Amino acid sequence: MPEQIFSYDRLSRFTEQIFIKIGCPGKEAVVATKALLSADLRGIDSHGVARLTGYIRLWEVKRVNAKPGIRVIHESPSTAVVDGDSGLGLVVAPFSMQVAIEKAKNAGTGWVSVQNSNHFGIAAHHAMMALEHDMIGIAMTNASPLVAPTFSIDRMLGTNPICVAAPAGEQPPFVADFATTTAANGKLEILQRKNKEAPLGWIQDKDGHSSTDPHELKKGGALLPLGGDRDHGSHKGYALGAIVDMFSAILSGANYAPWVPPFPAYVPMPAEQPGKGIGHFFGAMRIDAFRPPEAFKKDMDHWIGGFRKARTAGNEKQVLVPGDPEREIERERIQQGIPLAGSVFDELKELGARFSVEL
Amino acid sequence: MPEQIFSYDRLSRFTEQIFIKIGCPGKEAVVATKALLSADLRGIDSHGVARLTGYIRLWEVKRVNAKPGIRVIHESPSTAVVDGDSGLGLVVAPFSMQVAIEKAKNAGTGWVSVQNSNHFGIAAHHAMMALEHDMIGIAMTNASPLVAPTFSIDRMLGTNPICVAAPAGEQPPFVADFATTTAANGKLEILQRKNKEAPLGWIQDKDGHSSTDPHELKKGGALLPLGGDRDHGSHKGYALGAIVDMFSAILSGANYAPWVPPFPAYVPMPAEQPGKGIGHFFGAMRIDAFRPPEAFKKDMDHWIGGFRKARTAGNEKQVLVPGDPEREIERERIQQGIPLAGSVFDELKELGARFSVEL
Repeated sequence: MPEQIFSYDRLSRFTEQIFIKIGCPGKEAVVATKALLSADLRGIDSHGVARLTGYIRLWEVKRVNAKPGIRVIHESPSTAVVDGDSGLGLVVAPFSMQVAIEKAKNAGTGWVSVQNSNHFGIAAHHAMMALEHDMIGIAMTNASPLVAPTFSIDRMLGTNPICVAAPAGEQPPFVADFATTTAANGKLEILQRKNKEAPLGWIQDKDGHSSTDPHELKKGGALLPLGGDRDHGSHKGYALGAIVDMFSAILSGANYAPWVPPFPAYVPMPAEQPGKGIGHFFGAMRIDAFRPPEAFKKDMDHWIGGFRKARTAGNEKQVLVPGDPEREIERERIQQGIPLAGSVFDELKELGARFSVEL
Repeated sequence: MPEQIFSYDRLSRFTEQIFIKIGCPGKEAVVATKALLSADLRGIDSHGVARLTGYIRLWEVKRVNAKPGIRVIHESPSTAVVDGDSGLGLVVAPFSMQVAIEKAKNAGTGWVSVQNSNHFGIAAHHAMMALEHDMIGIAMTNASPLVAPTFSIDRMLGTNPICVAAPAGEQPPFVADFATTTAANGKLEILQRKNKEAPLGWIQDKDGHSSTDPHELKKGGALLPLGGDRDHGSHKGYALGAIVDMFSAILSGANYAPWVPPFPAYVPMPAEQPGKGIGHFFGAMRIDAFRPPEAFKKDMDHWIGGFRKARTAGNEKQVLVPGDPEREIERERIQQGIPLAGSVFDELKELGARFSVEL
């Protein structure tokens, strides 16, 4: 099948029905759908509806609980630990971010570490929940090991993304959402599909040599931490990935480092499991716990405006502010629809047939 | 003068006396000296006693207030904003980190944004204050603009470092302290002194072309965000530097982006000053606000042990855990003393003569 274009509403109805068919309560199906499709809207195609079949497979092998009893198991005025009860991360994450926001209302900030969860889609969707409350939102998650730390040939960390979203006034919000590797795994998957070479500095082969072969991960290779190699600061990317892992899993009691469960249901679970499920970490900081929001937003506008006016190098049109590219794509896709690769369309069609849901 | 080796105690007595001579109260001179020399002990020579003359010059031009009235100007149960009253960052930062720790004792976490401060030495010194309280410590600061964001030729951000320190049990603590650029400015200074080339990806020339000339910054060039270029994730390093800037300065009301005052006293102040002084941000998270510290530390030991046992690439001896290299140097220098470059020794000698303090 060639690429097909779908309206957001059509993909949303389909996804919601699929989640209901596996037993998700109606409200949670809506929450999960919104979280999942926010990736498609923002152009992070690797994390959107293309993963729906993967989530359902995890439910089939009983690694995802469609009716989880998500609950706070430990708390202080500004913190909580949430047990996701093996629920979809797409449901556990918004629940936990909401806990962080409620904590922030009372204590100024809220910080929630989560155990026993699954893949949560894109971090930005959860972090951005804080914006309407005039709060800064933070979201991060660990993930199964694909990344070799500096000097190593073993995959010890996930791509462990971080998102920070901060409100502005007249400018759109600042939203930085990025994997702590040179390139996200989704970008590598695109090169794999197209059989194109990757730039040096993205991946290494099984012996630790830098490689341009996007299929290297299937042959024992690894993704590289942001920086690429020691000379270019890969120990910093490694440290960042490690911080995400600790906040998400060691503060909560989830699995960490090479012991994080894999996303594909067919990949065997790690022999050792020091914790429960995968881990996330969320933060919400009330702006007015620091400064009047108007003053903060005025400075944010000034900051963002300054970067937009910065002189560009060579043929670059404009200096971008984190969040700009995704916002641009979202504007387009709301109007023109969401393109699905032929293979994704085929998979969804098959999924629909299995659950008697029309795509 | 060739390199000279000094005991920690001798450098400490000298530094403390100099701070007292410019009018620092005795207790604050001790605090500032400890903060400054922690850099020399940990091998971050660019941020230690080599900067003492620079700090004194800032006092001479009345940009550093030796007797500041540092105070909390806004707070909530888990947050505070501190006005550093133009004090030495070496004093303002420990004061503010202590506020974060006290907040965390009551609210579970404490977050302090600081305005009206100056250069605070190394972030690790402040973040590590949390460790003895069984807390995770976080410290970051903005700095004067040396870094061009992705696609730009303008210097818009400082090297804006981040430190996260987390306690372990039998293992030493995890301490990651890094500039959000490919390479810290201190590393570039070493290449400048030795007239050696820098690796590609550290700096660009005034037109935005990657360069190996370490003197490029004097000719209108810029440091590059972690990642180096767009293909290698420089937009992520840029986003990280931006986050540090916002937390440190837009939450507090300090100067931000290209408007951060320069460290060298002879460099003119930016024409525009949207805030006060430079900004820092500190965090303290009580481990037991999330999980029993014993459980956390057991997992930290397991995590760290796992990385130490990871297979190495090529001729590398061991996978390092953030904090290892600095700890190794500290052990050496406590025993064998701190080496000072000849030029640093000459400067300190002159400084001592001026204030009648014997080196």
